[in-house]
Amino acid sequence: MSLSSTYKPGLHILASFSATSASLRGMEACRAFFDRLILDKALVKVGEAYHEFPGGGFTAVIALTESHLSIHTWPEHGLATFDVFLSNFLRDNESIVRSVYGETLEFFEGTELNKTELRR
Amino acid sequence: MSLSSTYKPGLHILASFSATSASLRGMEACRAFFDRLILDKALVKVGEAYHEFPGGGFTAVIALTESHLSIHTWPEHGLATFDVFLSNFLRDNESIVRSVYGETLEFFEGTELNKTELRR
Repeated sequence: MSLSSTYKPGLHILASFSATSASLRGMEACRAFFDRLILDKALVKVGEAYHEFPGGGFTAVIALTESHLSIHTWPEHGLATFDVFLSNFLRDNESIVRSVYGETLEFFEGTELNKTELRR
Repeated sequence: MSLSSTYKPGLHILASFSATSASLRGMEACRAFFDRLILDKALVKVGEAYHEFPGGGFTAVIALTESHLSIHTWPEHGLATFDVFLSNFLRDNESIVRSVYGETLEFFEGTELNKTELRR
């Protein structure tokens, strides 16, 4: 089966990057960064969950009207897994997906380990 | 660069499925189903965000200690995009990722349109 002919798939970037343990323990700094990023890109947050683990790693999932953003950090491995998925319902968000990922990588001063792009 | 040698990548399933518009408008039914599923699979929820759109489509993102679960429904297109990503930190969760996806598809009586599996 194929998708409905009027549905325009959105871009989902899934990436892993390495970064310093200190930056991967910075949940509140990440929250402030994501909030600013969401405003800058004119995205609309409709809910979120942040959770810090013993040791300072954290998980954040942010529901957007456009879909979602997530990060899971593993300071003990110097690693984060990051997702950004934006639908194209109200406008074409593909360039915003790329800039959200790029700016996140910059914020963490991360080195990309792998990246997958899906249209869905 | 490669991942830290002690890090065992987790399985992430990303899928789209078609389903009836009625089931894709059932946010509260989905919430009850996910809550039961999370208990059944001995996963640990640490936060969540559910949001219903005008028209009855909805978005849910659930933060788990094991990573996350998300769904975005488009009743106007008879379509949902679903993700489940579980790390293997405390145990091997790969078969649980598959059963979470399979049971979600069954719950919505959905027809799979596409599925991607990533280890990350």
